Amino acid sequence: MTTRTTFLGLGAMGSALAAAALDAGRPSVVWNRTPGRAGALGERGATIAKTVDEAITGDGLIILCLLDHQSVHAVIDPVAASLTGRTVINLTTTTPNQARELAAWATEHSITYLDGTIMAVPEMIGRPDAVIFYSGAEAAFEENRELLDLWGQSDYFGTDRGMASLRDMAMLVGMYTMFAGFLHGAAMVGAEGVSAAEFARRQTPFLAAMTGQLAGLAATVDAEDYAGADQQSLEFTEAALASLVTASLEAGVHVDVLRPVHDIVRRQIAAGYGRQGTARIFEELRKSR
Amino acid sequence: MTTRTTFLGLGAMGSALAAAALDAGRPSVVWNRTPGRAGALGERGATIAKTVDEAITGDGLIILCLLDHQSVHAVIDPVAASLTGRTVINLTTTTPNQARELAAWATEHSITYLDGTIMAVPEMIGRPDAVIFYSGAEAAFEENRELLDLWGQSDYFGTDRGMASLRDMAMLVGMYTMFAGFLHGAAMVGAEGVSAAEFARRQTPFLAAMTGQLAGLAATVDAEDYAGADQQSLEFTEAALASLVTASLEAGVHVDVLRPVHDIVRRQIAAGYGRQGTARIFEELRKSR
Repeated sequence: MTTRTTFLGLGAMGSALAAAALDAGRPSVVWNRTPGRAGALGERGATIAKTVDEAITGDGLIILCLLDHQSVHAVIDPVAASLTGRTVINLTTTTPNQARELAAWATEHSITYLDGTIMAVPEMIGRPDAVIFYSGAEAAFEENRELLDLWGQSDYFGTDRGMASLRDMAMLVGMYTMFAGFLHGAAMVGAEGVSAAEFARRQTPFLAAMTGQLAGLAATVDAEDYAGADQQSLEFTEAALASLVTASLEAGVHVDVLRPVHDIVRRQIAAGYGRQGTARIFEELRKSR
Repeated sequence: MTTRTTFLGLGAMGSALAAAALDAGRPSVVWNRTPGRAGALGERGATIAKTVDEAITGDGLIILCLLDHQSVHAVIDPVAASLTGRTVINLTTTTPNQARELAAWATEHSITYLDGTIMAVPEMIGRPDAVIFYSGAEAAFEENRELLDLWGQSDYFGTDRGMASLRDMAMLVGMYTMFAGFLHGAAMVGAEGVSAAEFARRQTPFLAAMTGQLAGLAATVDAEDYAGADQQSLEFTEAALASLVTASLEAGVHVDVLRPVHDIVRRQIAAGYGRQGTARIFEELRKSR
């Protein structure tokens, strides 16, 4: 018997997931709210469904890759009765609490729920550098490893359905702040006629090298020992950030992203920790102020 | 004739610079405002001067590595007359305009001025991954390459004395925002009992890989073409950042650093650019609002 896998949602990411399954010879049925997206997948051998009801016929696995949490409910609520006893893997981007809410909804309808978050852009799907985090029903993870591993490296984070999303979101904060910081730096040198491309050629290896500092910051945070002599002090960091703010403003660059980092460091110094390590920024972010 | 090199300022960085010179067999004289720092360098063969006047005797090169711009003036203003016709290389951290001010002061006193900024921590001095940026007097850069190259990779950025500092500061913004974003992420997973060390093991290769996106952002910025179809749209990024803010607050993590990035993206969408690429963050940082 060849059980069909159902793909609901054919944006760039949903299409990439379905294409990888089809290319591996897995019978698949695909559906998208807006018709016309399925054509290329049809050429790859997919069955194109006109409705969700049609798409979920049978007893196969269901993969969701929709716009957001609300879209998931809009698509699956009306067909909940047909999903009883089946497995849904949700790769839609949701917050941890949204994932937990969906899991509770699934339990209520006797649906097995596995939440997944994709640490990759669509063109990376199928490559070993694509990482997908999962949490929720462990059996569903194990039983479908063959499919999941077609997409990239599959990591399972336990039965708390919110963990995959939490892990994913925690990783993305560093990415977006790094991107914003890079664009800030590009604006600084751009004010003196240096191209962003030339800046990127130097910034890319520098930031990649500086990721080597994260393990040290983490060890300090875990030990809650910010007084070690080998740490860059908050006072030193404050002086550097003050210079960065001044130089940015003099170059006509707004400090929306940079100023808050400076402010956090200043608050920790005001609290008496100036001689302690810069990793104390962590305490300012997690504390109840 | 063996001309002595003078090192003024023996903090961790100044000491590392002098040690590298001594280990290469260069006669050196060292001075620090607070006595007692010079001992280890004396054992390496340095002449220890008790005063700045004594340290600058002769006609050798002078290397400054002091606390800040103000310290530089405090040290060299009183001995300006003795520095006429000589070369000063200033490796103290200053803003671009502070470097330009010092260069103007030097010109006034017929002193040749080269500004340098060190993209490394002291323990990296002497290794090929230590990079030092220079700008200012080109002849001083060329004539002293043998010494400068002892410290790391030497890069010259032209006669505008502010450029080395500007380049340096532009690079550091990305580093500090990345560090803050990492600590934010660590606080998010920390709320669920995940150690920062475990988080760092995943975040380090992820962020290093994501630096590969910077060249693409830069190309978009340089072309001022934010409408290309292959770009992640501001609307997509806004939805992601909104989820990150929500998930952070639900995990009890403050969004001081993250919220401004979200706000910038929202302003660009409000200005009508929602379908355009996320690199438009650049326009928000450099524009006159």
